[in-house]
Amino acid sequence: MSELGKIGTYQFVAEPFHVDYTGHLTIGVLGNHLLNVAGFHSHDRGFGIDRLNKEHYTWVLSRLALEMYDLPMQYESFTIETWVENVYRLFTDRNFAVLNKEGKAIAYARSVWAMIDTETRKPVDLMAIHDGDIAGYICDKDCPIDKPSRIKVNSKEPVAILPVKYSDMDINGHVNSIRYIEHILDLFPVDAFKEKRVRRFEMAYVAETMATDTMAYYMDKVDDDNFDIEVKKNQTDVVCRSKVIFDRE
Amino acid sequence: MSELGKIGTYQFVAEPFHVDYTGHLTIGVLGNHLLNVAGFHSHDRGFGIDRLNKEHYTWVLSRLALEMYDLPMQYESFTIETWVENVYRLFTDRNFAVLNKEGKAIAYARSVWAMIDTETRKPVDLMAIHDGDIAGYICDKDCPIDKPSRIKVNSKEPVAILPVKYSDMDINGHVNSIRYIEHILDLFPVDAFKEKRVRRFEMAYVAETMATDTMAYYMDKVDDDNFDIEVKKNQTDVVCRSKVIFDRE
Repeated sequence: MSELGKIGTYQFVAEPFHVDYTGHLTIGVLGNHLLNVAGFHSHDRGFGIDRLNKEHYTWVLSRLALEMYDLPMQYESFTIETWVENVYRLFTDRNFAVLNKEGKAIAYARSVWAMIDTETRKPVDLMAIHDGDIAGYICDKDCPIDKPSRIKVNSKEPVAILPVKYSDMDINGHVNSIRYIEHILDLFPVDAFKEKRVRRFEMAYVAETMATDTMAYYMDKVDDDNFDIEVKKNQTDVVCRSKVIFDRE
Repeated sequence: MSELGKIGTYQFVAEPFHVDYTGHLTIGVLGNHLLNVAGFHSHDRGFGIDRLNKEHYTWVLSRLALEMYDLPMQYESFTIETWVENVYRLFTDRNFAVLNKEGKAIAYARSVWAMIDTETRKPVDLMAIHDGDIAGYICDKDCPIDKPSRIKVNSKEPVAILPVKYSDMDINGHVNSIRYIEHILDLFPVDAFKEKRVRRFEMAYVAETMATDTMAYYMDKVDDDNFDIEVKKNQTDVVCRSKVIFDRE
């Protein structure tokens, strides 16, 4: 298979309700597009959720790290490329590049996925699925951003405690992965995004939040432009951690 | 022009993060699609925001009423049709039909739009724009749902007071039209959507909320399945009103 055949390429337009007050595509919407293209790409290669579900397997997103030098403005078209960088026994690394309408890379992302058995909820050996076919899709295209880091939050006082609402939830009855991104950005004052932009955003997904839980957000300020966030359900169990690094304009 | 040429037809798929915990497309996402296809349809006929903005005009959404008998499930494809029903001097009625993958109409919507001068913020005579060309797109396709109603809310005690957050805002620095829909549905207990579905949803947009405002939500319970909601900025000025009518499953 050619390297090109291993890379999935998908076209988008930044829709009016998908941009923020600076006119740029929101990170939540970009995250949604990344997870969708991951789905399209794996579906077309025999590893889509629909086929896996029939076999009692499903993909679980473990980590996501984005680095953004620019983002599309309202009505601008852009392209997302995705490819598999590595396949380990229990994890696979999937990378992304976002290209602007001139074809210039304006953002990159790294993601780490596990496959679980939907009956036992236990991780599955990726090399045992479809005779290890997935390793055939490994592609050595460059993704020039750091891997997801280890995030540790010390703060014991939540900066926000949010009840889980209807619009937070996904088809599995959990808070959806994209909503955490929006809630985390909403911890910052609205004005924060006027003078600075998010350059790097990381998410580490640890556990699920249900409708009856609350989401408590804890934040460590590493410096003026670098924040570590932890979300605990019911102020006890970690559900996800995040790192937000800003760049001055 | 044939009647068919007057109707715009657009294809969609219900994406994983765009469905609720029952697996159905959310009303917020559907509303977003409706406003997008309104934009595509008017753009292709010379009345798009991009051209209007150059002429110092823009479209303003005044009312939206949806009636839903069913909604697409996760990964299902669906089609949205849109057409202009009427053009008055200061308003135009644009309707929508949502068709499921078998081509059956599963939802309809009505919307009312005004055009304003972006410099004076005053309404514009639609018949004076491009020699009244817009009237040539009037189409008599049926839209078998009631027109938007007059909504009146008596309650004086807010059921929620929400600060405006970064993710609420649109490119104009106002709370975006779709976010109100999500916030209104989030006024109901998460469990409410288990036994019943929203059959009809109305929005009347009156004014804009800015980042420095708060959004106070007032709710009249007309009966167990019928609710009128009013949003006031800073608990004083009405920004929008809504009606939510549920159907038991």
